Amino acid sequence: MAIHTFKAESILKEGMAVESTSRDFTIRADEPKNIGGKNTGMSPVEMLLCALGSCECIAARLFAVSQGIDLKGFRVSVEGDINPEGFLKGQEVTRPGFQGIRLKISVEANAPKDRIDEFVAFIQSRCPVAETIMNGVTIEVTQNVIS
Amino acid sequence: MAIHTFKAESILKEGMAVESTSRDFTIRADEPKNIGGKNTGMSPVEMLLCALGSCECIAARLFAVSQGIDLKGFRVSVEGDINPEGFLKGQEVTRPGFQGIRLKISVEANAPKDRIDEFVAFIQSRCPVAETIMNGVTIEVTQNVIS
Repeated sequence: MAIHTFKAESILKEGMAVESTSRDFTIRADEPKNIGGKNTGMSPVEMLLCALGSCECIAARLFAVSQGIDLKGFRVSVEGDINPEGFLKGQEVTRPGFQGIRLKISVEANAPKDRIDEFVAFIQSRCPVAETIMNGVTIEVTQNVIS
Repeated sequence: MAIHTFKAESILKEGMAVESTSRDFTIRADEPKNIGGKNTGMSPVEMLLCALGSCECIAARLFAVSQGIDLKGFRVSVEGDINPEGFLKGQEVTRPGFQGIRLKISVEANAPKDRIDEFVAFIQSRCPVAETIMNGVTIEVTQNVIS
């Protein structure tokens, strides 16, 4: 099976607004007014939490049948902690990114608790966004173009 | 400075569609038709790339002044490779998440190339989403609710 390359492009707009496009879809990011934005979209760190939550949900849908779960509903509450000093003062002070992420998962299915726990653990082991975030991946800046 | 907790909630809808909400903002995720979705939104792994690209853009806007860059424009092309076997067959075969992420950054500013390169490197060191993805973070499932 071949490796698949996913692509996106983000363009800085007025103020702190950003339009990010992948295939036919565009998401707008911004910052709240107390950070200097105009609050016209969620912030990128919130978008990361949404990417994680939605990946868990799709993995649940995709693996429910093979895992023997008659899935009626699935939702994920995601929380993550950031210390703004990491962004403002640098990694010598504290990390700029998330210090920890917590998931509260609600499964609606007619199955005993131990089977649900196994199902949730299975999803964690396969979810691409969760695995990326847990284990990290190299980000390489291949080119700076100045125009 | 206090730690700030960011929050989101993702709810599985019909098929593979997912609605994820953070504060007042909602993003829809789905999968392309060849994966069994209805292609009504970008996939979660594409959303992760958009979160990364938009965070780079906002960091550029926020740090341009203090870094002495008269920023006219900023855009990021993001690419990431996934081997679907990791998702389908598990981590024993290959990792389910991104195997590598590449950024091509275009800066529009009246500054020499070495100053632009320093500016781009500074952004990489502070961008919260980039730092999370590069170094990884613990994801804890704190509660499974069965309903």
